Amino acid sequence: MKKYDKLVTNAAGRVVPEFFNGKEHTPYLGVGKYRPTGRKYAPPIATCADYPNDGNKTVPSIKDALIKADIKDGMTISSHHHFRNGDLIANQVFDAAHELGIKDLMWFPSASFPCHEHLIKYLDDGTIHHIEGSMNGPLGKYASEGKMSGLGVLRSHGGRYQAVQDGDVHIDIAVIAAPTADAFGNATGDRGPAACGLLGFALADSQYADKVIVVTDNLVPFPCYPWQIHGNYVDYVVVVDQVGIPEKIISGTTQITKSPDRLLIAELTAQFCDAAGIVRDGFSYQAGAGGTALSIGIYFAEMLKKRNIKARFIRAGSNLYPVKMLEDGLVDYILDGQTFDLEGVRSMRENPNHVNTSPFTSYNYHGKGNFASLVDVVILGATEVDLGFNANVVTHSDGYLLHGIGGWQNCLFSKCTIMPIPLFRDRMPVVIDEVTTLCGPGELIDVIVTERGIAINPLREDLIDKTKNSGLPIKTIEQLKDEAEAICGKPSKPELDDEVIAAIKWVDGTVIDAVKKVPGK
Amino acid sequence: MKKYDKLVTNAAGRVVPEFFNGKEHTPYLGVGKYRPTGRKYAPPIATCADYPNDGNKTVPSIKDALIKADIKDGMTISSHHHFRNGDLIANQVFDAAHELGIKDLMWFPSASFPCHEHLIKYLDDGTIHHIEGSMNGPLGKYASEGKMSGLGVLRSHGGRYQAVQDGDVHIDIAVIAAPTADAFGNATGDRGPAACGLLGFALADSQYADKVIVVTDNLVPFPCYPWQIHGNYVDYVVVVDQVGIPEKIISGTTQITKSPDRLLIAELTAQFCDAAGIVRDGFSYQAGAGGTALSIGIYFAEMLKKRNIKARFIRAGSNLYPVKMLEDGLVDYILDGQTFDLEGVRSMRENPNHVNTSPFTSYNYHGKGNFASLVDVVILGATEVDLGFNANVVTHSDGYLLHGIGGWQNCLFSKCTIMPIPLFRDRMPVVIDEVTTLCGPGELIDVIVTERGIAINPLREDLIDKTKNSGLPIKTIEQLKDEAEAICGKPSKPELDDEVIAAIKWVDGTVIDAVKKVPGK
Repeated sequence: MKKYDKLVTNAAGRVVPEFFNGKEHTPYLGVGKYRPTGRKYAPPIATCADYPNDGNKTVPSIKDALIKADIKDGMTISSHHHFRNGDLIANQVFDAAHELGIKDLMWFPSASFPCHEHLIKYLDDGTIHHIEGSMNGPLGKYASEGKMSGLGVLRSHGGRYQAVQDGDVHIDIAVIAAPTADAFGNATGDRGPAACGLLGFALADSQYADKVIVVTDNLVPFPCYPWQIHGNYVDYVVVVDQVGIPEKIISGTTQITKSPDRLLIAELTAQFCDAAGIVRDGFSYQAGAGGTALSIGIYFAEMLKKRNIKARFIRAGSNLYPVKMLEDGLVDYILDGQTFDLEGVRSMRENPNHVNTSPFTSYNYHGKGNFASLVDVVILGATEVDLGFNANVVTHSDGYLLHGIGGWQNCLFSKCTIMPIPLFRDRMPVVIDEVTTLCGPGELIDVIVTERGIAINPLREDLIDKTKNSGLPIKTIEQLKDEAEAICGKPSKPELDDEVIAAIKWVDGTVIDAVKKVPGK
Repeated sequence: MKKYDKLVTNAAGRVVPEFFNGKEHTPYLGVGKYRPTGRKYAPPIATCADYPNDGNKTVPSIKDALIKADIKDGMTISSHHHFRNGDLIANQVFDAAHELGIKDLMWFPSASFPCHEHLIKYLDDGTIHHIEGSMNGPLGKYASEGKMSGLGVLRSHGGRYQAVQDGDVHIDIAVIAAPTADAFGNATGDRGPAACGLLGFALADSQYADKVIVVTDNLVPFPCYPWQIHGNYVDYVVVVDQVGIPEKIISGTTQITKSPDRLLIAELTAQFCDAAGIVRDGFSYQAGAGGTALSIGIYFAEMLKKRNIKARFIRAGSNLYPVKMLEDGLVDYILDGQTFDLEGVRSMRENPNHVNTSPFTSYNYHGKGNFASLVDVVILGATEVDLGFNANVVTHSDGYLLHGIGGWQNCLFSKCTIMPIPLFRDRMPVVIDEVTTLCGPGELIDVIVTERGIAINPLREDLIDKTKNSGLPIKTIEQLKDEAEAICGKPSKPELDDEVIAAIKWVDGTVIDAVKKVPGK
């Protein structure tokens, strides 16, 4: 079977395959244009008659659980990435599958990290056929070099929930590593020796997979509460020595940036939000875990404190800074999708107003609304932005697919999307003619903040109007590009093979772009 | 169309219709014998493109919401009963439907109460075709007299979740009265002027109905947290003056029984549990809200305190007594399905170990296990028990269908099911030859405790063995029946018409019994 077929030009002008990994896929039609007509995926009906009356679902090992779950060639095995680079379970799952001689599995992680480089040998020997999920680092490089048997498919957190809910991806066996669980399968991430905060990325897996295996290193008597994962969805529970390395859960940095340029970008971003009237009593924001984003959060906190007002909620990726704001009474709620440090974990465990959310509540585009569009301002990064305000977050300017897509696409639906980015990195302009890979359509990206000026999307006349007398260095996106090129020279487009190695899904399951093979490897 | 057809004898020897309310239904096959082969009901896929970006789903009135939800003749409208006899919304929904000239609706409440007597006129005029749901009081009497156009269908709380999940009942429009909600539709029962504790009975409705309307009298800024009902499932939000009367939420009594007979029954029950080794460190129990059940809980509390041990969890229907045990450190968790007084509401709001549960977690038989079978001992009532330990909880000995079925059937799966009942009521024996209506198969009912002795089901040799030297007045069920008849005389069976007016479902959706019309009315 061909890896992919039927190349067409989608509504964004990108050439994408309509067929890959054995299925048809709809090309991107534009924001809000694709209308689902079907029904949600319907899992088989279970019966209590098949489960132990005493609720004890433990089995001795991951391998035993896979055998009981009737693992077979060609199945889809899912996992979550709340342990990030500290995950110890996904590798063991495929070790066990390999020992059982299983072939052609599809791995469907919510994201993969450098710790999963171990799995390259199983991609090479056919245990794993391909990966659908964000590939941070080595596995992305492996895919970029054309070595994977199927196409990589990158979905946003919301897009992954949508794909499972809608039956685009059918999970045969979900493996959910859990810092604490009971023998019935109730599981939580907010406590236990490997506490990682929450388990929201595994919610869809628990609800829709045929078989669900919970793996824990901290078995407690029923009930394990909170039950972020309901035992009522769980088939087997496995107890192991250690599910994850808590220190490696940390994402990004917990250090405010010290770079003068980054600090300037952060300050300009906060000032822009203020000038645009966004920072007001009851406002809401989402910012990432990078040094610049952290600094913006601190500017917001200072504004709130000075004016004696408070934010209603912060959508997070939490770490010590939003936690401090919550504890200082500067915000009512943290609505958290993943904890980025151990302070985030502690706060979620201790503070009822530090709420664990999921891609279902926050990001699923095929729901009756979601939280993302209710956020007043979201601060996002990008590897590239182009003259149409389109942005790339997955490939480098050399074409390598090295970054996950996370909730980035979903967040674009906020009331104001701002990208604070350096004008160039390593003397490569970040504002360019056309992005290498299209991840976010320009119509949803409102403001680009660089150390040399701020560009507002011409569609946002309201923002242009509100900030025109602010004294902020407002420029056009073309001006920013010209300044970058005046310093770095005109960048050349990366030379890439025609072969497609990965597809980028939009939030509605359509294909927004294809990633090409990096040549000569 | 006939109300019902195809009478057959089921595995319990009861004659039941295989066809009613326009659908085929499987007769009861025995405990754990029916094996579902299909898939869960699959609701249509929604898209955020159809919902307001700012999350504001409010519409001006219940009538407007019904119009927007495209209400039509013959639809199924659901509601929950957490307000019990203080509900103010269900009547208004059918007032609006009547004003719109809609006919032949099926009302699918989780239970109905005397406050819903208002709806008899809509049953008379054809606005409502029939009711599927427990009918406490006037509506049950109405059905018993053969006046309803369709058959009443009684399902346990778990059976109702099962029926919705499995697509046996398709809800067109769910109306969820909520003491607090935000404009996005997130809703909670634990706060607000009409706080009723939780909203778990509406969970299935929110997940599976085509359209979901939240009605609240306490709209708060997003996010309404906790979100017992996810706004992501909600289509419209309506704000009204008052959703319910909190004082009428109270169920049963909050008074310990003063009857010497009832106190004796309570004491014997607690002593039996102790003799059987059930009351030990880490044990769990569920008891109702009647005076006898309350007294049993108090005996348990005293045993725990005296021995300096604690229970792991109480499954509830909570009120001030379990709450006091939680606050006194005599139990780790209350796993609560409905609050029976305002102390229960307060505790659920304030105490993270007072956990709100749902029929999905606790009772759904078509899940991968549920909580009910993990409970060490459950204390249940009955209107009648027969020589086969079969029990009735819905009809009186005169044949009138006056009581709901609640979680009663689901609770029978606990490790030990005890029914503390008086040997007779109003000089009518409670232990009889054969129950008028079969609600619970005798093989699941372990112990009958009366003021004149305790009968243990012969199937439970373990319990017989453990308690044989306890000094407790252990008798056979036949002895109990004989004693009752010696006092009251042999009771005559109620004279009932052949016409079937209601079907009783078992936890797996099969038909365990049919209720006959009370004649001459």
